[in-house]
Amino acid sequence: MSGTVEKKLADLGITLHTPAAPVANYVPFVRTGNLLLISGQICLDAEGKMIAKGKLGADVTIEDGQKAARACAINLLAQLKAALGDLDKVQRVVRLGGFISSVPSFVDGPKVMNGASDLMVTAFGDRGKHARTTIGVSVLPGDAAVEVEGMFEVS
Amino acid sequence: MSGTVEKKLADLGITLHTPAAPVANYVPFVRTGNLLLISGQICLDAEGKMIAKGKLGADVTIEDGQKAARACAINLLAQLKAALGDLDKVQRVVRLGGFISSVPSFVDGPKVMNGASDLMVTAFGDRGKHARTTIGVSVLPGDAAVEVEGMFEVS
Amino acid sequence: MSGTVEKKLADLGITLHTPAAPVANYVPFVRTGNLLLISGQICLDAEGKMIAKGKLGADVTIEDGQKAARACAINLLAQLKAALGDLDKVQRVVRLGGFISSVPSFVDGPKVMNGASDLMVTAFGDRGKHARTTIGVSVLPGDAAVEVEGMFEVS
Repeated sequence: MSGTVEKKLADLGITLHTPAAPVANYVPFVRTGNLLLISGQICLDAEGKMIAKGKLGADVTIEDGQKAARACAINLLAQLKAALGDLDKVQRVVRLGGFISSVPSFVDGPKVMNGASDLMVTAFGDRGKHARTTIGVSVLPGDAAVEVEGMFEVS
Repeated sequence: MSGTVEKKLADLGITLHTPAAPVANYVPFVRTGNLLLISGQICLDAEGKMIAKGKLGADVTIEDGQKAARACAINLLAQLKAALGDLDKVQRVVRLGGFISSVPSFVDGPKVMNGASDLMVTAFGDRGKHARTTIGVSVLPGDAAVEVEGMFEVS
Repeated sequence: MSGTVEKKLADLGITLHTPAAPVANYVPFVRTGNLLLISGQICLDAEGKMIAKGKLGADVTIEDGQKAARACAINLLAQLKAALGDLDKVQRVVRLGGFISSVPSFVDGPKVMNGASDLMVTAFGDRGKHARTTIGVSVLPGDAAVEVEGMFEVS
């Protein structure tokens, strides 16, 4: 019973890259007890290229924002694999925090964030259902359109 | 010794409705160990109508923002009841995150957020005193004026 | 083996003041199990004067923003001391949330936030390396340039 989550992702064409470590005095994840906290992940693809830059409501469509949120979720999965070795050790996706770079009139952040939530449930099934907070922010690191952080219960 | 918190709320004229489940791949709350994480609650009333729309510093007064924050707190209580059955099982309100939809010049977010904090202490007394982070954001889901998320220690 | 972290800070000329309690229905920190959650700290100095006001990208340089982030981190340390008595009881800095008051075009929040992260590693060494989320927000309480919240594993 190991590797089943990663196999499911592979069937979807999603392969998890080895994530780059931050070039600063912080780390991608910290475990405390059975909780794993993962740093905010911006919408970079496996090659480190930004999926979507700029703001929802101006530069980025909802559909492209959803792809960006999905990319953030894939980066969370890549960090989970780096932390745990095996994604099957995830007992529960506890909470996702979704940050949507938005012009002040863009009220559809939750639709964008669904791109991340849907991938978690695809990967983990019922264990992937999480508490979630979505907010529209002024701007994100590197002008990313979306950033997602996560809290996970792990074994 | 059950139902005392809910009775106190009833004395204040606050009845907790059965909250609607999110229509997406996330859930209103997740328990991990003795921690309960509740998704960000926007300022909807018991009928699902938005209490205050728009931004502090432009469309919404501080007083109306406080009412909106209080509504978010009531929605947190409704989720707690759905999760626990009995609000007396709340051992401690650990942390509230307060998100105030603000024009860039509105610096009184904490006054607004007091509407949520005050209700927690009214409901739970000293156990209701929480760590808190308040920030002013660009925009919130559905143009809500206020959103509040919570972490609780439960038995 | 007590007082070593505080001695290191004193060698750097950093003395921790006794922090003022919030004048509202919340508290600076809450402990649940081995986790300590600390409320968002704005960039006040030991005398309660704001280190930097306004927004990155307009009123505040990156260098001044870093000093502001460092001040937020010092305030987190002061709260840790108030909570624990001895900073050596910190087992791990688990997570920092960094909120940078930003004009919508300011994309260098992480550089600013390094001011807080660096101090944590200076104080605690490897135990100071944390998960981190940095976002650019519309506005912060009292027009502070930076706010930082923290989650700590303590003994």
